[in-house]
Amino acid sequence: MRDILRAVAEGELSVDEAEAALAGYVTSEAGRFDAARESRRGVPEAILAEGKSSAELADLSTSALESTDRAILTRVDAERRTAVVEAIETETDAEVRVEGSTIVAHAPDFEAADLDATVGVVTAGTSDAPAADEAATIATEMGASVERYGDIGVAGVHRLFDHLEALRSAEVLIVAAGREGALPTVVAGLVDTPVIGLPTSIGYGHGGAGEAALSGMLQSCSVLTTVNIDAGFVAGAQAGLIARAIDGAKRA
Amino acid sequence: MRDILRAVAEGELSVDEAEAALAGYVTSEAGRFDAARESRRGVPEAILAEGKSSAELADLSTSALESTDRAILTRVDAERRTAVVEAIETETDAEVRVEGSTIVAHAPDFEAADLDATVGVVTAGTSDAPAADEAATIATEMGASVERYGDIGVAGVHRLFDHLEALRSAEVLIVAAGREGALPTVVAGLVDTPVIGLPTSIGYGHGGAGEAALSGMLQSCSVLTTVNIDAGFVAGAQAGLIARAIDGAKRA
Amino acid sequence: MRDILRAVAEGELSVDEAEAALAGYVTSEAGRFDAARESRRGVPEAILAEGKSSAELADLSTSALESTDRAILTRVDAERRTAVVEAIETETDAEVRVEGSTIVAHAPDFEAADLDATVGVVTAGTSDAPAADEAATIATEMGASVERYGDIGVAGVHRLFDHLEALRSAEVLIVAAGREGALPTVVAGLVDTPVIGLPTSIGYGHGGAGEAALSGMLQSCSVLTTVNIDAGFVAGAQAGLIARAIDGAKRA
Amino acid sequence: MRDILRAVAEGELSVDEAEAALAGYVTSEAGRFDAARESRRGVPEAILAEGKSSAELADLSTSALESTDRAILTRVDAERRTAVVEAIETETDAEVRVEGSTIVAHAPDFEAADLDATVGVVTAGTSDAPAADEAATIATEMGASVERYGDIGVAGVHRLFDHLEALRSAEVLIVAAGREGALPTVVAGLVDTPVIGLPTSIGYGHGGAGEAALSGMLQSCSVLTTVNIDAGFVAGAQAGLIARAIDGAKRA
Amino acid sequence: MRDILRAVAEGELSVDEAEAALAGYVTSEAGRFDAARESRRGVPEAILAEGKSSAELADLSTSALESTDRAILTRVDAERRTAVVEAIETETDAEVRVEGSTIVAHAPDFEAADLDATVGVVTAGTSDAPAADEAATIATEMGASVERYGDIGVAGVHRLFDHLEALRSAEVLIVAAGREGALPTVVAGLVDTPVIGLPTSIGYGHGGAGEAALSGMLQSCSVLTTVNIDAGFVAGAQAGLIARAIDGAKRA
Amino acid sequence: MRDILRAVAEGELSVDEAEAALAGYVTSEAGRFDAARESRRGVPEAILAEGKSSAELADLSTSALESTDRAILTRVDAERRTAVVEAIETETDAEVRVEGSTIVAHAPDFEAADLDATVGVVTAGTSDAPAADEAATIATEMGASVERYGDIGVAGVHRLFDHLEALRSAEVLIVAAGREGALPTVVAGLVDTPVIGLPTSIGYGHGGAGEAALSGMLQSCSVLTTVNIDAGFVAGAQAGLIARAIDGAKRA
Amino acid sequence: MRDILRAVAEGELSVDEAEAALAGYVTSEAGRFDAARESRRGVPEAILAEGKSSAELADLSTSALESTDRAILTRVDAERRTAVVEAIETETDAEVRVEGSTIVAHAPDFEAADLDATVGVVTAGTSDAPAADEAATIATEMGASVERYGDIGVAGVHRLFDHLEALRSAEVLIVAAGREGALPTVVAGLVDTPVIGLPTSIGYGHGGAGEAALSGMLQSCSVLTTVNIDAGFVAGAQAGLIARAIDGAKRA
Amino acid sequence: MRDILRAVAEGELSVDEAEAALAGYVTSEAGRFDAARESRRGVPEAILAEGKSSAELADLSTSALESTDRAILTRVDAERRTAVVEAIETETDAEVRVEGSTIVAHAPDFEAADLDATVGVVTAGTSDAPAADEAATIATEMGASVERYGDIGVAGVHRLFDHLEALRSAEVLIVAAGREGALPTVVAGLVDTPVIGLPTSIGYGHGGAGEAALSGMLQSCSVLTTVNIDAGFVAGAQAGLIARAIDGAKRA
Repeated sequence: MRDILRAVAEGELSVDEAEAALAGYVTSEAGRFDAARESRRGVPEAILAEGKSSAELADLSTSALESTDRAILTRVDAERRTAVVEAIETETDAEVRVEGSTIVAHAPDFEAADLDATVGVVTAGTSDAPAADEAATIATEMGASVERYGDIGVAGVHRLFDHLEALRSAEVLIVAAGREGALPTVVAGLVDTPVIGLPTSIGYGHGGAGEAALSGMLQSCSVLTTVNIDAGFVAGAQAGLIARAIDGAKRA
Repeated sequence: MRDILRAVAEGELSVDEAEAALAGYVTSEAGRFDAARESRRGVPEAILAEGKSSAELADLSTSALESTDRAILTRVDAERRTAVVEAIETETDAEVRVEGSTIVAHAPDFEAADLDATVGVVTAGTSDAPAADEAATIATEMGASVERYGDIGVAGVHRLFDHLEALRSAEVLIVAAGREGALPTVVAGLVDTPVIGLPTSIGYGHGGAGEAALSGMLQSCSVLTTVNIDAGFVAGAQAGLIARAIDGAKRA
Repeated sequence: MRDILRAVAEGELSVDEAEAALAGYVTSEAGRFDAARESRRGVPEAILAEGKSSAELADLSTSALESTDRAILTRVDAERRTAVVEAIETETDAEVRVEGSTIVAHAPDFEAADLDATVGVVTAGTSDAPAADEAATIATEMGASVERYGDIGVAGVHRLFDHLEALRSAEVLIVAAGREGALPTVVAGLVDTPVIGLPTSIGYGHGGAGEAALSGMLQSCSVLTTVNIDAGFVAGAQAGLIARAIDGAKRA
Repeated sequence: MRDILRAVAEGELSVDEAEAALAGYVTSEAGRFDAARESRRGVPEAILAEGKSSAELADLSTSALESTDRAILTRVDAERRTAVVEAIETETDAEVRVEGSTIVAHAPDFEAADLDATVGVVTAGTSDAPAADEAATIATEMGASVERYGDIGVAGVHRLFDHLEALRSAEVLIVAAGREGALPTVVAGLVDTPVIGLPTSIGYGHGGAGEAALSGMLQSCSVLTTVNIDAGFVAGAQAGLIARAIDGAKRA
Repeated sequence: MRDILRAVAEGELSVDEAEAALAGYVTSEAGRFDAARESRRGVPEAILAEGKSSAELADLSTSALESTDRAILTRVDAERRTAVVEAIETETDAEVRVEGSTIVAHAPDFEAADLDATVGVVTAGTSDAPAADEAATIATEMGASVERYGDIGVAGVHRLFDHLEALRSAEVLIVAAGREGALPTVVAGLVDTPVIGLPTSIGYGHGGAGEAALSGMLQSCSVLTTVNIDAGFVAGAQAGLIARAIDGAKRA
Repeated sequence: MRDILRAVAEGELSVDEAEAALAGYVTSEAGRFDAARESRRGVPEAILAEGKSSAELADLSTSALESTDRAILTRVDAERRTAVVEAIETETDAEVRVEGSTIVAHAPDFEAADLDATVGVVTAGTSDAPAADEAATIATEMGASVERYGDIGVAGVHRLFDHLEALRSAEVLIVAAGREGALPTVVAGLVDTPVIGLPTSIGYGHGGAGEAALSGMLQSCSVLTTVNIDAGFVAGAQAGLIARAIDGAKRA
Repeated sequence: MRDILRAVAEGELSVDEAEAALAGYVTSEAGRFDAARESRRGVPEAILAEGKSSAELADLSTSALESTDRAILTRVDAERRTAVVEAIETETDAEVRVEGSTIVAHAPDFEAADLDATVGVVTAGTSDAPAADEAATIATEMGASVERYGDIGVAGVHRLFDHLEALRSAEVLIVAAGREGALPTVVAGLVDTPVIGLPTSIGYGHGGAGEAALSGMLQSCSVLTTVNIDAGFVAGAQAGLIARAIDGAKRA
Repeated sequence: MRDILRAVAEGELSVDEAEAALAGYVTSEAGRFDAARESRRGVPEAILAEGKSSAELADLSTSALESTDRAILTRVDAERRTAVVEAIETETDAEVRVEGSTIVAHAPDFEAADLDATVGVVTAGTSDAPAADEAATIATEMGASVERYGDIGVAGVHRLFDHLEALRSAEVLIVAAGREGALPTVVAGLVDTPVIGLPTSIGYGHGGAGEAALSGMLQSCSVLTTVNIDAGFVAGAQAGLIARAIDGAKRA
């Protein structure tokens, strides 16, 4: 601890970095960023954009970049995306990437993880893309190789067979679907890898907003685990944890 | 009306037959049987066994046989099945057939309808059989040719393709499924005939008792209409009405 | 396949037409249009307007018109209707028709289907019109003759009897109702044709947003199948499939 | 109060009658009977049989008879009915009547109310009878003339018109229905008297156990008020209160 | 009928009046007004303002005024109230009155009903006023004398006793309450007149939007019937029907 | 720890007592008893009888008595009550008391807590007694003086005022109610002590099984906190914790 | 009463103060303020800002200040906060404080309560702050010493142990949590003081809007009582009542 | 195929084995056993005992043993367990093991899988054991090393820390919990391995039957995926698939 404090005193360490190292989080006007989550849990902390202003998002991103060399923002709506990217690029020297409603910023010193394991991310329709984007981004940030397979709806199940070999080559699969949410069940019946069902809030009327998709995945005749509706972050992080376990085993 | 009354007076017509002809229903101790439903609606009346004793069921069956030459009993549980069959065979000279939990009795004079149209009845698993039995029996009684296809679950969707040609040759399809209820969606995406989804009360936990299957069929990405959970009678009767319309068109 | 490619090379076929012929869908900036759905399933593909900009809708409509000579857009809200119609008329030489919140565009070469079968579309109140419009448009586009019967609420059930003969002459009936959704039950008890219940999201408080209407139709004492709340497209397409089966039988 | 106590002392008044007069209730081993409810509220107190033994029911009936000259027991299942009737007849000199699952006992001194007002009780099907029996019994006990109309289901709405004149002559109507519960809506659209909807727990699957019927009555396009599922007592008592108001007005 | 047509020909009757007399409704651009509802059912037709523009509301009001000398508009939000009132006053010579979110217009020839019966309208809190206003207006328009009692919440139940005599003098009571909705139960335990519970959409979190209030009234230990959440119109009309029955009995 | 082990070795301490002292729980065939809960949390551990045989209950009771000198069993149904009491009395020298469906056994050495604080336990009807018994027993076992007030239903709210002074003298109140669950709201509006609402599973139809009572208490206009349906143990224990805090403050 | 009226006549008492003293509430254009609640119940009345304009809020605040020397406004959204504060400061000489979405104003004569008891307010995440602010403000206004503990989520349960001693020193604990709402359960398992669970409307998808948190707290394995979702006022007031009881006991 | 048929002809292969090899399933009186599931999906097929008689279970077990050398029966209730075990031991020479409500039978030739990967199975309370038993059995049958950790409830979260090192050493964790279901969240916040939440149907009242536990796990602040309530089979199989992937990577 003395080392950290001395480094602060001598200006080698910013206050944010020091607080992150000592307490595990960084406090700013806009809230608190849990910098220690990754070391403790192996999952990077993400900043949920809903209910925060562009300024607060930029502020939290700066804290995140200073303490962990990375900032991940999820559910940034189209209106605020440009403003947030500009603010981060102005305030820091990070490289910023936009993936649907997810924003990722890497500081120059950022060292990307690199796992020897592939995560497949499958969507039933184009409307399922936002949740799948979030999942893919998190898995990528955790170091997995991510492959995307889009628009494989069960209403035209023959299309699935064109991709079957590719799907079987992934080591973990995330399958996103709304409406009746049948795709994860069909896929999980055809592969022998772990499948994570990601229900999306697509649909209307009775069972809408993802409830039919979620209950269908929970009732699935195939073996799969599921996450909450639109919980792309959780699906991606769980896939990343499995990928890391596989990578660790390969290196062992 | 005078004719009917005179026929009763002269013993040519039983009181039941006369009441059925005049009022459209027959009254017995065990309740009232809507004898006119078939002529009014084209759908035979069925006696729901739940909550009735074996004696009441036999009683209502006798009324039905006297007034319409046929009795259809649905949801007769295993305990009472033999007693009811025996009672009907003792009290009447009808020919009795048991189809799962459905019992059908035909009087010697019964004239079976015969439609030039095929109804396919598909089940996802063996547990879906009771609802499918009910549907198949009603469609058969309405005169349709019924073909059965069993155990085509989506967890092994390749099995479906073995039956695809057969499924495509039916003119109407009833697809019964519990759990996540995805089979009607997958089937309806592969054929160009009308598909009726029949959710069954198979499943457990969240979305159990058929709720997940029902909401999945209502949310389906494919074109299909649905009936309530375990409503085999309604699915079979609707298929019968479509079959009759097709038959009528063929004969026109 | 060589023929298609050669036709593209020689400019006889657009890239969209070629992609549709080869892969079954057309890809544009705004998404993917499933051009093969009609040939595979017998139901035209529709573009759901919700969540898409006017420009994206025009873009997808152009793709649809190029590959299938037709574009159907559903749930276009009043604000964007004029803009979309103008955009389609500017970019293509299609004839555009607006039916409530549904837009239909036909290319000059479009060959309309013409089925010898009538679909009746009944509404309980004026608020049920949008869902009924959608159903009527799809059935019409599939070639059926569509008859409309409006404002036949069960709160004044005598009005129903004025239309009874007309209703009985249709070969399939779609009955749209919100609130307590009793109309399909009453109608289905009086006719011997297949009835499809279309619950609408009209109502308030407990059982509002169409849930009471849906559960009432599922519990109906009459024989009818149902679709999800406001699912006019599905009701219209199912009626169209039955109409086509009847037409085919008549021609056989 | 001295008068009451002296009457007890002199044996003119039983302890039960005295407690009822002073405190408004009678306490026995089996619980407490609210004897003052009728004078306070104008509605006779009923003993709900569910969860009580035959002995407890007889015991409470005796208390009720002693304090108010009447005992009303609701929801007495078939198994215990005979035992309870016998017990009451053994222990008291009351006259006992069984109406479905309801039991009514009148002490010799009982003075029946007699209102100049008619309550019509309508049922959609035979399964709705238990709730309707309960309603009819309570209204009768409150002094109303009760007319019953059975088996007027909306699936054969023409049957309703046979009874229309009779229904219009009642001054209050209770309409009991399960399944989709549409009958109260249809009836209330045809008469100009107050209608009380009584949803029954008939039905299955989604919206079963009376939930569809209840929500349909709450959403009704017609004017009607409703009670909870199977709440025959409440429907009958409310009709009785309206009948009493009408009777009072006639006498004024 | 000839008389009506001749009156139209001679200009004594407007087209609207004639259509109303012959068909029972008047058709305008903005929809259809059910002019015969009052004569058939005894309840005036109201125009639900939700989802209609100010122009459409004025248009429908004019039709209503022409055919029945009265227009009642419910759920007119604050923004459109002035515009609608002005439009009616400009287009017709009716007298217009605003009662919360309800607007009532009377043509000069309007003959008000006058019933010798009192309806009490009670609210638990100020937020319950809009539903209560609607109920009070309808009962008034049906001719009842309406008395209002406000802010009698059960959280200060002593306040109720100040009003008890007044409440007991009404011949029918409507009791509106949101949150836990206990007031109708408490009131109905203290009076011997019919009580109608009117749950309002006041509340938040679990059981919010009126669901707790509605289920509390349905479960009430007291005798009361209920209407759907915020259904002031239905509560007021049912009270009006009871008032009319009492008035008729008094006059008999 | 050496002391404990030596005491075991010398037979001064049973194995159960030693395990309880060291590990905080006692393991027997029938399961594990958390003996340390009281010292850690100040709430005695109770043995939930549901799903356990009489033998298992006696077995767990013995463990509890050996380690903590007390056994509390909740939700013991009527059939097993005598058997369990007999078994405990046979196997141990404890004094056993039955309070509704709750059984309490004290070893001869048991030292009862004695708090200078009063908990009032109020019930709306006799059916609410089981949950209230459970609450009262736990509060008593924690040392509070418990006063009971029964049958104070809101349908006769005047009865409440007879008890008002007594209710105001308690330092904490538990108010149990089923059906519409209004009593805690009414009571909490009249006293200035903390009130805990205890919803019971009394009721039927919509909002039955305690759901209406629970949501009514959560929506209450008065200040009160609540526990889950029938959670008498939790209500009693929370009241006991508050009583202990008050007792501690008095002694301070 | 004469005294009060004379004081009004002589101008010593404002009309508001007099009405508050006599009737227990103050009536203004914007509604009615229940001034007597505090004396009757011991809980200050708060003005719920939702659905009221800034002018109405200022108006009600003035009434509250005049009659009770204090105004508490809850759920004031960010847009109207400044306007309301300014209006109060302009119209009165009160001192105004903003605590999240809660506004508190004290007249110069206001005498703050001062209880010798500590309430701890714990939050799981920063999003839970608004509900916790509301709770803390009410407890403070009732005179309790309030300690805040923030960001102690169960996903990093080790952080809880850093605060354990502090948490144990509070005499009552309010624990606010959204999402899965596990924090109150974990805390209540580690302390021996009364814990009040405050579920917040944080979360998404299935169980979102606080429903999962609420049901988790109701199902808690630990002893805790709960309030409705976001009901900070109720949690704070209940804690205040317990604090006052403890304070009273200390002073006794 | 010829080889298989010849082997049957020569008696080297039973009919069951041949059908399994050719069609992937074995048909018996009691139903159909999907013998190919393991090869296709890597998950052994289990026989769900619910709704089947002891004879049917023994029959299906024999088929399973003949075709795959193993039979796994889940949810065998205590009454039928002995009968089923005896029947299997009588009819076959398999070795039978009972694990809670799960029965596993291995034929003498059975070759157990052996994976170099550990699955930890954690339970919150003893009532969670049945679901956890099922999960542990399946993971074991798939070849994983399974470690069990019992009774680590969050109401005494300190107990968790005693097991933390052990939990961290597992490569996948299944965490079973009922009631508020908080344990998986707490565990997943402390380890960096994939965690699968297994909600159990323990609990009562609102959110009972596992619904609170399920929604809490779906809302979890930690990273975890979940399965349906009591779906021990699915949790165990998913853990087995992850263990196999890790084992494969280690061997690679």
